[in-house]
Amino acid sequence: MRQQLNRRSLLGAGVALGAGAATAAVATPAQARAAQAADAADVVVDTVVVGAGLAGLAAARKLVAGGKKVMVLEARDRVGGRVHDVSLANGGTMERGAQFTGPTQTRLQALAAELGVRTFTGYNTGDSVYYTADGTAIRYSGALPPMDDESYQALGQAMYQLDTLASTVPVDAPWTAAKAEELDAQTFHSWIEGNVSNDTARTILHLISNGALSAESRDISLLWVLFYIAVSGNETNPGNLTRLTSTLGGARDSRFVGGPYQIATKMAVQLGSRLVLKAPVRRIVQSGGRALVVADGLSVAASSVVVALPPTLAGRIAYSPALPATRDQLTQRFPLSSIAKAIAVYDKPFWRDAGLNGQVASLTGTTRSTFDNSPPDGSYGALLAFLDGDQARAVEERSDATVKQAVLDDLVHYFGAKAATPTEFVLGRWDAEEFSRGGAPGFTAPGVLTRFGTAIRRPAGVIHWAGAETATFWNGHMEGAVRSGEQAAADILKG
Amino acid sequence: MRQQLNRRSLLGAGVALGAGAATAAVATPAQARAAQAADAADVVVDTVVVGAGLAGLAAARKLVAGGKKVMVLEARDRVGGRVHDVSLANGGTMERGAQFTGPTQTRLQALAAELGVRTFTGYNTGDSVYYTADGTAIRYSGALPPMDDESYQALGQAMYQLDTLASTVPVDAPWTAAKAEELDAQTFHSWIEGNVSNDTARTILHLISNGALSAESRDISLLWVLFYIAVSGNETNPGNLTRLTSTLGGARDSRFVGGPYQIATKMAVQLGSRLVLKAPVRRIVQSGGRALVVADGLSVAASSVVVALPPTLAGRIAYSPALPATRDQLTQRFPLSSIAKAIAVYDKPFWRDAGLNGQVASLTGTTRSTFDNSPPDGSYGALLAFLDGDQARAVEERSDATVKQAVLDDLVHYFGAKAATPTEFVLGRWDAEEFSRGGAPGFTAPGVLTRFGTAIRRPAGVIHWAGAETATFWNGHMEGAVRSGEQAAADILKG
Repeated sequence: MRQQLNRRSLLGAGVALGAGAATAAVATPAQARAAQAADAADVVVDTVVVGAGLAGLAAARKLVAGGKKVMVLEARDRVGGRVHDVSLANGGTMERGAQFTGPTQTRLQALAAELGVRTFTGYNTGDSVYYTADGTAIRYSGALPPMDDESYQALGQAMYQLDTLASTVPVDAPWTAAKAEELDAQTFHSWIEGNVSNDTARTILHLISNGALSAESRDISLLWVLFYIAVSGNETNPGNLTRLTSTLGGARDSRFVGGPYQIATKMAVQLGSRLVLKAPVRRIVQSGGRALVVADGLSVAASSVVVALPPTLAGRIAYSPALPATRDQLTQRFPLSSIAKAIAVYDKPFWRDAGLNGQVASLTGTTRSTFDNSPPDGSYGALLAFLDGDQARAVEERSDATVKQAVLDDLVHYFGAKAATPTEFVLGRWDAEEFSRGGAPGFTAPGVLTRFGTAIRRPAGVIHWAGAETATFWNGHMEGAVRSGEQAAADILKG
Repeated sequence: MRQQLNRRSLLGAGVALGAGAATAAVATPAQARAAQAADAADVVVDTVVVGAGLAGLAAARKLVAGGKKVMVLEARDRVGGRVHDVSLANGGTMERGAQFTGPTQTRLQALAAELGVRTFTGYNTGDSVYYTADGTAIRYSGALPPMDDESYQALGQAMYQLDTLASTVPVDAPWTAAKAEELDAQTFHSWIEGNVSNDTARTILHLISNGALSAESRDISLLWVLFYIAVSGNETNPGNLTRLTSTLGGARDSRFVGGPYQIATKMAVQLGSRLVLKAPVRRIVQSGGRALVVADGLSVAASSVVVALPPTLAGRIAYSPALPATRDQLTQRFPLSSIAKAIAVYDKPFWRDAGLNGQVASLTGTTRSTFDNSPPDGSYGALLAFLDGDQARAVEERSDATVKQAVLDDLVHYFGAKAATPTEFVLGRWDAEEFSRGGAPGFTAPGVLTRFGTAIRRPAGVIHWAGAETATFWNGHMEGAVRSGEQAAADILKG
């Protein structure tokens, strides 16, 4: 049987980088194994990187630039992790996974520029629409749905309170915040219900949790929310809730021309045969200051390892010796959010003719958050529909066809009958993907950051931790992934 | 390397059942593999049981009785899981892991009786001592520390409220409770702080979380706490908080003469060569209504599987096809509690001479909860010291010697100078054990039961789920483990 499993892992281990990828000379496990041989391992390198998402790729790239011999082991038959674009029949490209970038995301944008991937500002002309709990449509322009003065002031006051609290949370050690104990003892839901008396403001704050964190306010520690606000900036621009939640000028300001998957595939091409696909890592054995990284069909020895996976997936690798209790318990308590993305493609962005910018926020429906996802030239139309938190969970066991129909029904409700007949339909169900098992961001429930947070980045022997969930700026975003990988590489390079 | 790993897993795969075990004719992986051969698998049986804790052993025993051909695969070199006793140099036996039983735990006690393991009521003669936050000792008799009338009434009122709310929570489907949404949106901490105005009552309620659930009130969903209260009974006796938290007449009423590990080892002996130790299961492949269970060094094919592990550990097995998203996300959100147990052994139970029953509840210290753990005849003395929740976490990275000294310092504070010099010292650090990674019980943070709870027991193809965390009575206790295993077996037997 073991032989059978080995054979299975080798089947089709070639390159499948998908949309936007140049032809990459990555190795199959067999080729990589043949390339070198050492006593116990099939291959010996300086550093093994586990996971070829943006974090792992950025780490590997920097390590190679620093003169290290590197091998990247990726479980999937493609790179990119939670970044993945698909090619459309109409010749375009759509983002199944992460897609947005915005101000202060300096490392991601520098990397993209270096690789020749440009950004563009998303479509923002026309009105947004807010759907109330009874399905009433309210058209509006600007960042917030129309509301009475009292509600507006209550919401502003709550956001100010959150920003003020967030400013007390150190981005690299949120557990040391002055009021960390109190802030980590409650859910965001409890804080909203206990501190905001205005109904409309409360509703918007719960929506922010769903939309910006892809998790419900009840799922998340208040301290995590404050941390997540604090990290939505960079070294020179402190994070704030407005930047985190905004489209124009915020985290959803811009997209990448041709999609962000190119950033991953272009790094993959540069890595060449250092990258091995279809090689899920199952075990990491440390001994004498070295590590043996055991993947299906391939074992690689190294003097350091970067595990560039979300903590919950990193926790599924078998470590020998077993990891310290604090680290292991952290991985038991750091789930990924629940998320699916649907994109309906049309001949034209017809909603623009009606003066709509494609942005909907709704209190009901399978999708409660939409965006105009058309290409920069508007040569065809695309509506992006998020299923965040409870909306993703509600359809976990439903078929793709059922989800598609539910999304299209919502889009018809939001944008009219023309939405019923897309020319193409893209569905990314991240919770169901074996090697993601949820979307960005990960998050922590009450009690986790204060008691287990110190283990997020602390190396375990020669193992360093990277991934968007370990980042100290734009945690949970592509920017955070890139930063975390570069940081892990820098730590290894400085020895 | 794969060969090397295989060899390593075979080394010393013999029997190491430890204290209280009869000599058991369990098989090594090599023997088991040699015993049978099938096309893809080393062995073919009707049902594979993953994990030889009480749940897995009880499941296997019932399946065998029902005529099934069974193989149990256990990762450790012993059975019992979180149940494990050690032999003392003085000839006695002490419980490193689970140890208590009490009224309404009918299945565990019936099983023990059938196996010839008797129970006895713990030592309860004399006073308990309550240590306040400034270290003042208050001696008292009865179940609760002395407090003013107002505090007593406030605590009684809060406990009544919790019991009343718990009575609305169905033990087999807590997510269907009338107010499930609201109850699952807050931590137990938030409920205490928002609903109990009396300081003393609040303090006791937070202590109850630490002592009865081994987790802090901030860690846990209120709905989980209510569920945990509701299940502290059986078919004819509804659960209640008093039974859950009491010593005399409650969950900590009694112990097993010679220790509960005998229950596990006696079942292991009955299973004989159906039980394979040192065979951690890494992968379960389902295909055509059958499963191949792949452990280190051994693959077993079967028509059904019982995974009798805590959800967080079950989530670390690689499943093919991947499990449904709801189930996988549940395993990301169902951590084990943090717990260590220390037992100091003395020539005599000297505290009894001072009129103390050995029970301390303290608001400070490394251990804040102690019990007289002497054998039924009092022929030597033993003090059990729990490190629950934050106390366990605070020492995760400290050496055993440091923890021992801290515990002994506390015991001297609580029981006087004689406590400084135990003849033996037993330490069970469950968070650090590779194949436990925490103690009982598991628990869920807000938002988990209502959104992912349906996946706790729902079979995934031919895989059934068991373990104390899946039980509908005495979840998290040995009783729950036995019940869950017997239930999974019954489900398989009825086809």
